[in-house]
Amino acid sequence: DETPADLHLPDNYVAWTIKNQKELPPITLDNLLQNIQWISTAVLVITPSIAIWGLLNVKLRWETFLWSVIYYFITGLGITAGYHRLWAHRSYNASKPLEYFLALAGAGAVEGSIRWWSRGHRAHHRYTDTELDPYNAHKGFWWSHVGWMILKPRRKPGVADVSDLSKSAVVRWQHRWYIYLIIGMGFLFPTAVAGLVWGDWLGGFVFAGAARLTFVHHSTFCVNSLAHWLGETPFDDKHTPKDHFITALVTVGEGYHNFHHQFPMDYRNAIKWYQYDPTKWFIWVCSQLGLASHLKTFPENEVRKGQLAMQLKKLRETQEVLRWAPDPNDLPVISWESFAEQSLKRPLVIIAGFIHDVSEFLDEHPGGRHLLVKFIGKDATTAFFGGVYDHSNAAHNYLSMMRVGVLQGGTQHGLEDKAIPPSQRLRVARY
Amino acid sequence: DETPADLHLPDNYVAWTIKNQKELPPITLDNLLQNIQWISTAVLVITPSIAIWGLLNVKLRWETFLWSVIYYFITGLGITAGYHRLWAHRSYNASKPLEYFLALAGAGAVEGSIRWWSRGHRAHHRYTDTELDPYNAHKGFWWSHVGWMILKPRRKPGVADVSDLSKSAVVRWQHRWYIYLIIGMGFLFPTAVAGLVWGDWLGGFVFAGAARLTFVHHSTFCVNSLAHWLGETPFDDKHTPKDHFITALVTVGEGYHNFHHQFPMDYRNAIKWYQYDPTKWFIWVCSQLGLASHLKTFPENEVRKGQLAMQLKKLRETQEVLRWAPDPNDLPVISWESFAEQSLKRPLVIIAGFIHDVSEFLDEHPGGRHLLVKFIGKDATTAFFGGVYDHSNAAHNYLSMMRVGVLQGGTQHGLEDKAIPPSQRLRVARY
Ligand code: HEM
Ligand code: HEM
Ligand SMILES: [Fe+2]
Ligand SMILES: [Fe+2]
Ligand SMILES: [Fe+2]
Ligand SMILES: [Fe+2]
Repeated sequence: DETPADLHLPDNYVAWTIKNQKELPPITLDNLLQNIQWISTAVLVITPSIAIWGLLNVKLRWETFLWSVIYYFITGLGITAGYHRLWAHRSYNASKPLEYFLALAGAGAVEGSIRWWSRGHRAHHRYTDTELDPYNAHKGFWWSHVGWMILKPRRKPGVADVSDLSKSAVVRWQHRWYIYLIIGMGFLFPTAVAGLVWGDWLGGFVFAGAARLTFVHHSTFCVNSLAHWLGETPFDDKHTPKDHFITALVTVGEGYHNFHHQFPMDYRNAIKWYQYDPTKWFIWVCSQLGLASHLKTFPENEVRKGQLAMQLKKLRETQEVLRWAPDPNDLPVISWESFAEQSLKRPLVIIAGFIHDVSEFLDEHPGGRHLLVKFIGKDATTAFFGGVYDHSNAAHNYLSMMRVGVLQGGTQHGLEDKAIPPSQRLRVARY
Repeated sequence: DETPADLHLPDNYVAWTIKNQKELPPITLDNLLQNIQWISTAVLVITPSIAIWGLLNVKLRWETFLWSVIYYFITGLGITAGYHRLWAHRSYNASKPLEYFLALAGAGAVEGSIRWWSRGHRAHHRYTDTELDPYNAHKGFWWSHVGWMILKPRRKPGVADVSDLSKSAVVRWQHRWYIYLIIGMGFLFPTAVAGLVWGDWLGGFVFAGAARLTFVHHSTFCVNSLAHWLGETPFDDKHTPKDHFITALVTVGEGYHNFHHQFPMDYRNAIKWYQYDPTKWFIWVCSQLGLASHLKTFPENEVRKGQLAMQLKKLRETQEVLRWAPDPNDLPVISWESFAEQSLKRPLVIIAGFIHDVSEFLDEHPGGRHLLVKFIGKDATTAFFGGVYDHSNAAHNYLSMMRVGVLQGGTQHGLEDKAIPPSQRLRVARY
């Protein structure tokens, strides 16, 4: 138990396993019943059934409502601040009291023991979007939401090490008493609070117990489904994880999942302090109270690099669909005499060593036709660049689209800023 | 009158004029009174005075309030859709009825005749932010808002051609009868509507007349002040014009002024159909009704180029403040023997031909210390790139920061994507 499970993995473990490990036969109508995981399915069906029965038959008292919401956040935080960010990702250190609080609260969310949950979650991060990922988002929204719990998976999740957790007394304790803890924290405790304090035993059971649990379930399941499905990829688009405010809202702050898969050991999911991530706020408050320490953050410099790379990628796509001026090297080099001669036939104007055909533009020119006509067969560089009117960058860009030739010996030193249209001074370039 | 005023401008007109044209002496307390433009000052003081007196002493009836708002938009559009976009910029063609409507509505805004206004406005565009710009924003917010009308300018505005307008019958007619038109459209007409239709003569005068006029004044003045002061520069940052929604709100849609100075002959100021620009909507509706035609838009391709250039500029600034991996050419080339030897002293790992010192990272590694330790003195390329775990781009970027050497003969063909960290594959490069 003390040796890391992944210490002796061969270098080609992932590719080899996907290729050579046998999969179970696909699920069909015939073998469906044998392939249902009955215990988790029962929990996922009975809990909402109780909740719906309660909503129809039990009067909802406001104290019970309030308590259900509070207990939703407490047990939600047990998963997000405890199971997820503390144990699965070790993104901070917690003091013993906080560890016990999170282990109890997390048990109240009835999603398996810390050990079991973290093992799956670490495999999800290590093998995201592959067949070794237990909640592989490529198998569809419903598979990653609940399918993987209801049906027996076709293969074992990839190896993930949890030997560090096996050393933790709290984790071992929770695993050992887990069955009692879920009954206690999932149902008895929320029921007893409502029953003992304001006498609403039944309401406590159906609302703070069953309805609250249904919400916590689907809220945390959304981290595997919605967070891999809805939103933007501001940090990386190699895999499915996405950032979205709505996901954050329904998951107690786990909605900035694109960030999270890039920087899983960061105690935050939403990077700006004001972005909705109550889990991060909770951990931060705990650290201020001395209950948590060593809050890890990924270096800001590296975070911004990721963003920059994605932004450059977007701009490069734009750059590629736009039409640009002809490459100067593709243009014919024309002597002054030949330019003068051809100008008699079509309206040619020289600006910054380039010969432009302005026929399409004569009547469009905002400065008036007369100012262009005046320069046909002439050099308008000074006039164009501020002598008469300091044209906008847009005008300069547009001008470059009218290039039809290069004047022989026409480009002088110090003209670079006039020869290169402003929109082409910076480019997204590949290394 | 028929020859364009700028036909014979020398090529160095702007620089020469700014340098050699004499300025009037600066305004001081001593010469202040001689330097006030009394007529415009009177209009700008008396109108709001009447409005304030009215607000304190006259009951505001809802019909009069509604009419004042409507007449605010009518006379505002006279300036924005008429004076500005039709005449000063010729961004579309208007039928005679529409021209007369706009000339009358514009007169009701009491801001000078079309001819006078367009001349100043064209000079503003030609010489933006220079001393030849009549509302030069560099002279401060209040100068560009009202100062230039209250005080005599220190120099003549730069040459701008309005010979095209001199040919227009409507423009000439409006200029000729201008003094009667402002009395009629500025005060008599709004008063008479309120007086004849619902009997509120005094309210019509103070609210639909004076108060409405005060609002139209400062609303359009904001195009010269606020629009050069508040907001973003998504298309170009060479000059002061800026884009802001608030400016658009208070100026009947002229708030996307950064766009407008880049693309002044575009009939729109806000480029997306849903962005707040009632003037653009008005012109478009007129075109649907057959009252306007030839609505000009700048080619989308060129508009996007401007945006792209500004976005690249921003990303380049980010790129420049970030810390990057050491240049491979600056790293020592190290033999395998020497690498093996040094690995005994400090934790060195080879990945993709680079030697990395992971001492700072050993205890930080999310995959655990043991996986790194295992590869000290070894090549971890395959393990790092998916053999054991397919690291995120962020991990790869971060890895590159730990480079301390290049392995002799270490880079093989086909390794490029592993040797270049993802954040460095695209760069903002100068031409
Ligand atoms: C093919 C060459 C030219 C092109 C593509 C061009 C393009 C433009 C464009 C797009 C504008 C709109 C304002 C802006 O974007 O800055 C403009 C305005 C203007 N152009 Fe040109 N232009 C050319 C040549 C010239 C020349 C040679 C002169 C002067 C001799 C000139 C004088 C003006 C003036 C005075 C305006 C200002 C009009 C106003 O805002 O009232 N242009 N030009
Ligand atoms: C100096 C070299 C290394 C660096 C800088 C590094 C960096 C990282 C980082 C930043 C993560 C967080 C997840 C991610 O960003 O993808 C990570 C996770 C991981 N690394 Fe490494 N790593 C290195 C070497 C290795 C090696 C050689 C192995 C395997 C033999 C390995 C195995 C793992 C595993 C399994 C995880 C996943 C942990 C989890 O999500 O549960 N790493 N590594
Ligand atoms: Fe995920
Ligand atoms: Fe995670
Ligand atoms: Fe302006
Ligand atoms: Fe304008």
